[in-house]
Amino acid sequence: MSTEQSSFAVVDLIRAKRDGTPLNDDQIRWLIRAYTDGAVAEEQMSALAMAIFFNGLTPAELATWTRAMIDTGERMDFSGLSRPTADKHSTGGVGDKITLPLAPLVAACGVAVPQLSGRGLGHTGGTLDKLEAIGGWRASLSNAELFAQLEDVGAVISAAGAGLAPADKKLYALRDVTGTVESIPLIASSIMSKKIAEGTGALVLDVKVGSGAFMKDEASARELASTMVELGRAAGVNTVALLTDMATPLGRSVGNALEVAESVEVLAGGGPADVVELTLALAREMLAAAGVAADPEHALASGAAMDVWRSMISAQGGDPDAALPRARETEQVRADRDGVVTGLDALGVGVAAWRLGAGRTRKEDPVQAGAGIEIHARPGDRVAAGDPVLTLHTDTPERFAPALADLSGAIAIGDAAPHPRPVVIDRIG
Amino acid sequence: MSTEQSSFAVVDLIRAKRDGTPLNDDQIRWLIRAYTDGAVAEEQMSALAMAIFFNGLTPAELATWTRAMIDTGERMDFSGLSRPTADKHSTGGVGDKITLPLAPLVAACGVAVPQLSGRGLGHTGGTLDKLEAIGGWRASLSNAELFAQLEDVGAVISAAGAGLAPADKKLYALRDVTGTVESIPLIASSIMSKKIAEGTGALVLDVKVGSGAFMKDEASARELASTMVELGRAAGVNTVALLTDMATPLGRSVGNALEVAESVEVLAGGGPADVVELTLALAREMLAAAGVAADPEHALASGAAMDVWRSMISAQGGDPDAALPRARETEQVRADRDGVVTGLDALGVGVAAWRLGAGRTRKEDPVQAGAGIEIHARPGDRVAAGDPVLTLHTDTPERFAPALADLSGAIAIGDAAPHPRPVVIDRIG
Repeated sequence: MSTEQSSFAVVDLIRAKRDGTPLNDDQIRWLIRAYTDGAVAEEQMSALAMAIFFNGLTPAELATWTRAMIDTGERMDFSGLSRPTADKHSTGGVGDKITLPLAPLVAACGVAVPQLSGRGLGHTGGTLDKLEAIGGWRASLSNAELFAQLEDVGAVISAAGAGLAPADKKLYALRDVTGTVESIPLIASSIMSKKIAEGTGALVLDVKVGSGAFMKDEASARELASTMVELGRAAGVNTVALLTDMATPLGRSVGNALEVAESVEVLAGGGPADVVELTLALAREMLAAAGVAADPEHALASGAAMDVWRSMISAQGGDPDAALPRARETEQVRADRDGVVTGLDALGVGVAAWRLGAGRTRKEDPVQAGAGIEIHARPGDRVAAGDPVLTLHTDTPERFAPALADLSGAIAIGDAAPHPRPVVIDRIG
Repeated sequence: MSTEQSSFAVVDLIRAKRDGTPLNDDQIRWLIRAYTDGAVAEEQMSALAMAIFFNGLTPAELATWTRAMIDTGERMDFSGLSRPTADKHSTGGVGDKITLPLAPLVAACGVAVPQLSGRGLGHTGGTLDKLEAIGGWRASLSNAELFAQLEDVGAVISAAGAGLAPADKKLYALRDVTGTVESIPLIASSIMSKKIAEGTGALVLDVKVGSGAFMKDEASARELASTMVELGRAAGVNTVALLTDMATPLGRSVGNALEVAESVEVLAGGGPADVVELTLALAREMLAAAGVAADPEHALASGAAMDVWRSMISAQGGDPDAALPRARETEQVRADRDGVVTGLDALGVGVAAWRLGAGRTRKEDPVQAGAGIEIHARPGDRVAAGDPVLTLHTDTPERFAPALADLSGAIAIGDAAPHPRPVVIDRIG
C-alpha cells in the first residue's frame, strides 16, 4: 500500500530481509540492477544495507548478490595472454607496500599480474598514491595498454576502470556515509565483485587483523577470509587467503615515497625482514594458485624482480632512477626510557602518518608524496632513553602537533622483550 | 574520515546507535534539526531508523527524540479556553468510527475536544474521509476558527495543520518506503510528537490489538501503549491508554458514509453494543483525565451529545440532516451453512472495504463516500445457510471480485458459540 509499484516491491524486500527471510535470486538480481539504474532509491538501499548488517546474507544470497554486482559492468578476460594470471588483494594496513615488490616478483616468475588498485582514504595508504611519488608515473591505462604491458612486462599496477562492478562503486559510496561499511557479507561482495570482474585466474587475499586493520579481531578476519575464498571459488577463481598481522605497521616506513624506497630495498635484496617474509609468502601462494612452479627467493636474489620493477615503472612513464621526493620538515619521537620496544600500535602510527599528509580526508584531496613516518625501533628492538624511535616527515609542520597526539600511547617500552608475533597467522582455503 | 564534516558526524551517530551506544541529548537534538533542514540526508536517516528498529531507543533517548520533533514546529496552546481539553488517539482499526460520537459526547460533558485527525491510507479508514461523506463538511480550519469552534461548540474534528512536528511528517514518509515503520519507539514518538504539539491537556490512547490493527499481538500493543503513556506524562500531558480488541471489526459498518450513519445511531441512543461500550469507556477516561466529573451515559441518553454533533457538523459547513451518499451497487455474502458465526476477521474485512473504494492506495486518490461493508452477522450471531452475512457496497462493481477474494476465509461459522471477547482488554496508565 505504498505510493509506487516499484517502491512497494522494494519495501517488501527490505522488510523480508529485516525480518530474517532470505531474498531469492530474482529478487536480488532485480534489486541490484534497479539500484544501479536509480529505480531503487538511496534511502531504500541504505535501510536494506543496515538490515543486512544485522541479519547477514546466507551463502546463496551472497553468491547471487556478488554475481549481480559483477553483471552490472564489464568483465575483463585475460585468457588471450601467453601466461597465466594471478592477483593479490589486501584488506588494507599501515605500511602495507607489499604490492610494489610483489607484482614484479611474481611476474619475474612467469605469472602475469594485473594489479588494479585504488587510492587511500583514511589511515590505510593507497597503492596508487605510493607509486605516484615516482615522478612521471601514470596510474590510468587504457585496456589496450594494460593488455600490452601484461604481455610485454608481465606486471601492471594501475587504477581500476569505472566499468568494473559499477553497482559496487555506488553502493560503497552509500555505505561510507550511512554507517553500513562494517558488514562481512557486504565487504566480501564489494571486494570480490571487483576482483572477479577483473578476470584474474588466481587470487590471493591478504586479510589483515589487528589495530591497524579493518578487522580488529581474528574471528572476524577469519570469517571475512573464508567468505571471500568461498565466493572466489564459486566464481571459478582459484582463491586462497593469508591471515596476517596488522597490530604493528609493516616494515620500517609508512608514507608514499618512504614506502617506495623501502620496496626498492626489498627488490634489491635487502629491506625489513617482515616485509620480505610477507612478500615471499604471498608470491608463493600466487604462483601455486596459478599453477607455476618457480622459486620467488631466487627471482629476488637474481635481480630478475628488480628488472621487472624497472620495466613496469618505465612502461607507465615513471623514471625508476629518479630521486624520490622528501618532505621539507622532520621531527623525532624519542624513547623516554631505556628498555625494549614491546609494542608499536599500527592504528596510532597510521593515523599519525595520515595526519602528516600521507593520506587524505576527502576523495579529492591531494596527498604529500614525502609525508609519513620512519620507524627506527620496532617491537623487540632495544632502545636507550633519548634514542629516536620514529621520524615524522611532512611539508606542513603545523601537522606535527596533531600527529604527536595520535602517537601518544602508541609506543610501549618495557623491560622484557615481547613474544615475537608471526607475520602470517594462518592460511585459509 | 568521510567526505563531509556534517556526514562525518552523522555516520558516527549511526554507527553508535548500530553498535548499541545510546545517543545523548545534544546529538539527538542536532540530528532531528539537521534532518528537518536537509543537512542529514534521507539515506542516513533511513539507515539510522533501521538501526533503531533493531536496537530500540532508551526511555531517555525516546523522550529527547520526541521533544526534538515537537520543537521543529509550532505548539498549540488551549489554556485560554474556558474549559479543560482532552483528546483521543486511536492506532487505527477497521470500522473504528469512535471519534465521531465520542468528540461531541465528551464536549457535551463540559470538556473541549480538539480532535486533529488524518485521512486513511491502506485498510484502516480515516476520520476525515468519513466526515467528508457529509455534504459540505469542511476538514480544514484556520487556528482562529478552531479556537472559536472549541469555545462555542466544544468539539472540533479537523485536519492537523502542516505546522505540527514537521520532522515527523518527513520521517514518516521516509519510514513508509524504507521498511522502518514497525519500530515501537519510532511509532510512539511519531504519534506523541503530534499529539503533544496539539497542546491538549489530557490524552486518551486507544491502542488496538488483533489482525485488523497495526499491532497484531498483545505484548507489542502493551509495549506501545506504555511507551506512549510515559512519553505523554513526561511532557506534562495527562495520558492513559486502553488496550482494545481489533480481531473483529467494530460495530456493523465499515466505510465512510456507512460509519457516519452508525455513529448517528449511537448518538441517537442506539447503535451496536460494542461501539457504544467503547465510546463510553473512552469518554469516561477523557473526562477523568481532564478532571471533570460527568456522566457520559446521561449525555448520550439526554440527546445532549447529539446536539453537539449537529452544531459541530454545521459549524464546519455540513448539513446534519442531509441524506448520506449510498453506493450504486451492492452484493451479498451469504452463510454457506447453518451455525453460529465464530469469527469475522478484521483484516480481511478492512482490506475488502478498502478494495471496494472506501480507502485509497495513494495519498492523492479520492475515496468513494458510499463504498464499504455492512455486517449483518457478528461473532456469536446464529445464521442459517443462505442468510446474508455481509453486504458489499461500491460504485465500481468490477471491485466485487477482488473484495470477495480478500474475504475468503474471513468468515468462520461453527457449531458452538465462541467465547465472547471483551472490547476493552486492559487499561494502561
